Amino acid sequence: MDAATGDGARPLVEAAQVSYVTSDEFTTVVDHLWLLICAFLVFLMQAGFAMLEVGTVRQKNAKNLMIKNIMDLAAGAFVWWAFGFAFAYGGGDYSGGPSNGFIGAQGFFFIKGYDACDDASEFCLYPIKPKYDSFAGWLFQWAFAATATTIVSGAVAERCSFLGYVIYAVFITGFIYPVVVHWIWSEYGWLSAFRNPDAPGVWIASGVVDFAGSGVVHLVGGTISLVAAYILGPRIGRFDATGKVVPIMPHNSAFVGLGTLLLWFGWFGFNSGSTLALSGGFILAAEKVAVGTTLAASGGGLAGICMCFVKDGYLDLPALCNGILGGLVGVCSAVAVAEPWACWVIGFFAGCVEFWFAIGVQKLKIDDPLDASAVHMGCGFFGLICGGLFGTRLNTDATYSADQPCGAFFPGCGGQQLGVNILGGVMIMVWCSGMAFLVFGGMRLAGILRISSKQEHEGLDVSYHGSAAYDDTMDGSGSAKYRNKVQRAMIAEEVEPPTE
Amino acid sequence: MDAATGDGARPLVEAAQVSYVTSDEFTTVVDHLWLLICAFLVFLMQAGFAMLEVGTVRQKNAKNLMIKNIMDLAAGAFVWWAFGFAFAYGGGDYSGGPSNGFIGAQGFFFIKGYDACDDASEFCLYPIKPKYDSFAGWLFQWAFAATATTIVSGAVAERCSFLGYVIYAVFITGFIYPVVVHWIWSEYGWLSAFRNPDAPGVWIASGVVDFAGSGVVHLVGGTISLVAAYILGPRIGRFDATGKVVPIMPHNSAFVGLGTLLLWFGWFGFNSGSTLALSGGFILAAEKVAVGTTLAASGGGLAGICMCFVKDGYLDLPALCNGILGGLVGVCSAVAVAEPWACWVIGFFAGCVEFWFAIGVQKLKIDDPLDASAVHMGCGFFGLICGGLFGTRLNTDATYSADQPCGAFFPGCGGQQLGVNILGGVMIMVWCSGMAFLVFGGMRLAGILRISSKQEHEGLDVSYHGSAAYDDTMDGSGSAKYRNKVQRAMIAEEVEPPTE
Amino acid sequence: MDAATGDGARPLVEAAQVSYVTSDEFTTVVDHLWLLICAFLVFLMQAGFAMLEVGTVRQKNAKNLMIKNIMDLAAGAFVWWAFGFAFAYGGGDYSGGPSNGFIGAQGFFFIKGYDACDDASEFCLYPIKPKYDSFAGWLFQWAFAATATTIVSGAVAERCSFLGYVIYAVFITGFIYPVVVHWIWSEYGWLSAFRNPDAPGVWIASGVVDFAGSGVVHLVGGTISLVAAYILGPRIGRFDATGKVVPIMPHNSAFVGLGTLLLWFGWFGFNSGSTLALSGGFILAAEKVAVGTTLAASGGGLAGICMCFVKDGYLDLPALCNGILGGLVGVCSAVAVAEPWACWVIGFFAGCVEFWFAIGVQKLKIDDPLDASAVHMGCGFFGLICGGLFGTRLNTDATYSADQPCGAFFPGCGGQQLGVNILGGVMIMVWCSGMAFLVFGGMRLAGILRISSKQEHEGLDVSYHGSAAYDDTMDGSGSAKYRNKVQRAMIAEEVEPPTE
Repeated sequence: MDAATGDGARPLVEAAQVSYVTSDEFTTVVDHLWLLICAFLVFLMQAGFAMLEVGTVRQKNAKNLMIKNIMDLAAGAFVWWAFGFAFAYGGGDYSGGPSNGFIGAQGFFFIKGYDACDDASEFCLYPIKPKYDSFAGWLFQWAFAATATTIVSGAVAERCSFLGYVIYAVFITGFIYPVVVHWIWSEYGWLSAFRNPDAPGVWIASGVVDFAGSGVVHLVGGTISLVAAYILGPRIGRFDATGKVVPIMPHNSAFVGLGTLLLWFGWFGFNSGSTLALSGGFILAAEKVAVGTTLAASGGGLAGICMCFVKDGYLDLPALCNGILGGLVGVCSAVAVAEPWACWVIGFFAGCVEFWFAIGVQKLKIDDPLDASAVHMGCGFFGLICGGLFGTRLNTDATYSADQPCGAFFPGCGGQQLGVNILGGVMIMVWCSGMAFLVFGGMRLAGILRISSKQEHEGLDVSYHGSAAYDDTMDGSGSAKYRNKVQRAMIAEEVEPPTE
Repeated sequence: MDAATGDGARPLVEAAQVSYVTSDEFTTVVDHLWLLICAFLVFLMQAGFAMLEVGTVRQKNAKNLMIKNIMDLAAGAFVWWAFGFAFAYGGGDYSGGPSNGFIGAQGFFFIKGYDACDDASEFCLYPIKPKYDSFAGWLFQWAFAATATTIVSGAVAERCSFLGYVIYAVFITGFIYPVVVHWIWSEYGWLSAFRNPDAPGVWIASGVVDFAGSGVVHLVGGTISLVAAYILGPRIGRFDATGKVVPIMPHNSAFVGLGTLLLWFGWFGFNSGSTLALSGGFILAAEKVAVGTTLAASGGGLAGICMCFVKDGYLDLPALCNGILGGLVGVCSAVAVAEPWACWVIGFFAGCVEFWFAIGVQKLKIDDPLDASAVHMGCGFFGLICGGLFGTRLNTDATYSADQPCGAFFPGCGGQQLGVNILGGVMIMVWCSGMAFLVFGGMRLAGILRISSKQEHEGLDVSYHGSAAYDDTMDGSGSAKYRNKVQRAMIAEEVEPPTE
Repeated sequence: MDAATGDGARPLVEAAQVSYVTSDEFTTVVDHLWLLICAFLVFLMQAGFAMLEVGTVRQKNAKNLMIKNIMDLAAGAFVWWAFGFAFAYGGGDYSGGPSNGFIGAQGFFFIKGYDACDDASEFCLYPIKPKYDSFAGWLFQWAFAATATTIVSGAVAERCSFLGYVIYAVFITGFIYPVVVHWIWSEYGWLSAFRNPDAPGVWIASGVVDFAGSGVVHLVGGTISLVAAYILGPRIGRFDATGKVVPIMPHNSAFVGLGTLLLWFGWFGFNSGSTLALSGGFILAAEKVAVGTTLAASGGGLAGICMCFVKDGYLDLPALCNGILGGLVGVCSAVAVAEPWACWVIGFFAGCVEFWFAIGVQKLKIDDPLDASAVHMGCGFFGLICGGLFGTRLNTDATYSADQPCGAFFPGCGGQQLGVNILGGVMIMVWCSGMAFLVFGGMRLAGILRISSKQEHEGLDVSYHGSAAYDDTMDGSGSAKYRNKVQRAMIAEEVEPPTE
């Protein structure tokens, strides 16, 4: 029982029993708690992506998409533990150690780095440092890495081999994505706004404003998506003889909607959690970010469904959902430094960008089943631009340092931030498309990237995963029946599996 | 930096290094964090409603319900930002400003009100005030507004036009609901238990006890639901020639159950979060509320499934789910001031109210596909009554002021609180039914409320939203096939789309 | 209001305005908040179990599984409130009261126990004590109890009567499970590591290390599952004439995957929340636990899918999901005291245990539709063993007392902890299998345990719950049509409902 601090009437010994909370304990508890909660929310985005992707593809590939999304977490956790986190945030000691602006190199498998484990003992293998290097921070960043990787599974859906999937997923989670994180979010990165002033070398004075990852997460995933979809080639039957798009309908709209709602829910953790703290005024930033996130989703969703109505004459669910996701992607970069009205505007135009980017990709005869490139590349790059345009005072709410430049739309700010953000976006696209050409091109040359046309007709579930995703028999004899049904359907409709 | 107090023994320099957390920072962080977390949970209720409603309707309208539920968030966020929040909580300055007990009038689009932005600058457009006016508070209240609006989409399911939906949703989120919030939850409202003593005019001495919104949220949504369902008229085929109800089965029970579980999950935020704080002892209120919520759901669920068994001879899922939801609705009002056993009792009887209210609505030949009026109007009003009956000490856990009267069931409390709560309920029903008659009646007269009988037979998905919700083809050619299937079904079964 | 201490420089009046947070308030708020949040997450595991189980069974029993899972919460809350919590944590007063190491006996229906309600009043019926006895603690433990009970619904799926379900669920939630909790987690239990030194009697010096319940929750649920599945007998058609397993396919793989992701999500609360606190350094334990949980799921998932590929030649979803769940179950015991690498290793081998345990159960001709015994009994017991092997320093992060022995794999630790943990596991299995034989055996003798073979052929949804789970008709006339379809299918395929 802690006694209250006494007015003069009480004896001193009682007053001495009162204990107060140190700023240290408070900060540790609330900041790490915040990271934990937000990590859980971002984790749940994986369920959102899973339902969105499963619902959007044909039912013959539903199980495949579900397996891929769960594997992104299971395999991704191993890879992020082994390599990814070390490449992303494993710093240097500035005294001859492996510090550099391109890639981190310490902390593989939580093995202690240069300055970790002050209270070293035989069992202390991992560092506990503030923010990034806490276990909560690792978890939060792992969920982000899984997001970047999962994006691509939408673009290569319904035709990528499982081996191909495993290889590219390991590369993205373990190497391509962490390098970009190191550039922009670590304190050593050459494009980082949080760059440690003691880091060696002369770099860009102020870093990229990419608060929650329009560029670091979404542009990475989206760029790889576009290249992967291009190299893989379209699904059989996606374009007709004259090159016109043949619609392939989502097989379960309820899943699409549920997935979108789960993604929006998780995005509250994705964006608000990117404050990485609540103490020191960051709670005010976090809640402003949550509101900006909401308004951006609102703007994007309204843009998406309106444009669908104008162009197609009806109100479709994927347009609404992709508009919302586009708005959420677009606002990630600027959300901590932009006014609420600006977040709605960013979301609205991101929704437009998404809609037309997707049509542009189709015109290029690239088949991206989930429009992953439109949502994540189009809106990701657009978001980086907005980060350079709408930042009112970039040090708002203690998110960035006071000498970070502000957005080009505001008087006296100049174009510096816009320039840096565009440079960041271009560098991400160069890095990711280059790596994606190597990884996917290499697998294509090796003949391990794409399934056979027969397998594609049957669907990945039957050909790779033992049985169909659904079974409506009374006795649960699904698998065999479904195979027959597939074959029967082919015979009945006289569909000949075309040769490629 | 807050200096620490050293005891005499320690050297001064060491004492100076310790810093303690001020109550101010602590309160801001934990209270706003609580609102944020609970806002996220209430947000997820929208996914719960979506799955519940999608699962309950026929599959030909599944996509329509999903779109409506997502639009309630996307469009609702815009409306709540533009008007709703200002009407609900935008107060007055008591010196000639627009303060009144009926409706708020400040803070549209986060534009600063009378006393906002003490540290005014050119970019400061929004107020940051405690609780209600923080961004976290806005988010929490927005999620509530979306709930009130979404309730109605169940009642008008399967036959309301999309234009009609958009119009009524804007009215509810932007006007009908905020006015009731202002009455009962703002510090200016004429029925508010939190009424600022400096507010002008003579009103009711003690306000309505409606902690989490049996009345403010559910009775509003439920009353509008009943009127809307009445004005819209029943679905084709809902009643046979003799006026007997023809069962229309839920198309996906798994969705119904998942939706209910997501709703219960979100309800922890809805009820516990209504403490609006954790500091100052509110944590104890919040956790007691979480337990009361659980016990009410338990009571309601058991009542629902038992009554279904007694009446129909089997144990059905919708009865269980609606019983749970009825219990949750019923306990909202009293949960902070009632003992745990009272919460279970309230839930149990609310489950009974729900069951028989739904049957009563059917007897009146009103078709409410989701029983939204039974769950939200019946149990909402019942909940307000319970708020006047079961409040043990209304100032329990600092939720209400000490001079708030207590529940009529307890000796020495008198019937004042019961009377005020009934008055509040009646006023809500008068206001909401009046507005609903205007909005829905007007749209019916204008001929824009209901879809054609041909569209109703085809389903909204095909007629409004481009394609069916589901597709089980191998090639994803859903839409065209489904249309054919619809037509083929009509031909095969010789169903003639009846003229109205 | 806590007065601040001013340093000499400040004027007294200013110093008096600053107030600091007492450790008491801080601890109460953050610890209870943590329990609340984690209780919500564990609650959502019920949705995960529901989707996993619904998706895995045949569609004719989908609604039945959903009802059972929701009933586990609704009925379970009543039972836990009435009996369960009192049996688990209702302690004694050590002065002749009903304290003993086997079972608790105070706090039924929140009625106050020996030392509760210091500020007693006529309405004060419940105790508010730290951790276990707070309302947040009750909620957290209730969600655990629901988990233990729900596990069994998978093992008895598709053939257990509803009456049988209700009876066994009440026994597990209200008696079998609470007794084990009392043994191992209460401060009075004869196997408890948190045993109050003032408790009477001479017992085992150091208790079982079972941090989050590999034994207390999962081994309980899993052992009962195995016995129940054995007594119930296999589903019709599960084994062919020669005794070989006939595959029964999951009817909805998307539900299986979604359920697994929801379970993993909820498991963050299950494991991390088992610190029961954040203050006093427990935040560091909580986040390390979250990371260990993740790595164990990763190891288990990879083990599961690899073994499926090696054995069956394809990559199936249930193998991946059950591997993940096995890893999560296996790590529960040791996760707070094991290094991250150990968690991955534990998860990996738990995934292997799950895979082969399931095959072993099949070889014994026991039909466990969800492999509940493999996941929860196999990996639960394995987890207890790991708790005795991998604990580096069992007092790590303040989770256990400093004189708790450590894991047998580490030099100087000895085998004491391993021995105690194995003893604990054996005692759990003895207790649970004994009780399960009584409960299930009794019901079988009474003839109320299993549905008739005709009902089994039709499915529980049609025979018990009024109608089928799904309806794809245009007019929602599901039930009748589905019955016809069932009958038609039987006629067309000339399936005669076999007599038992």
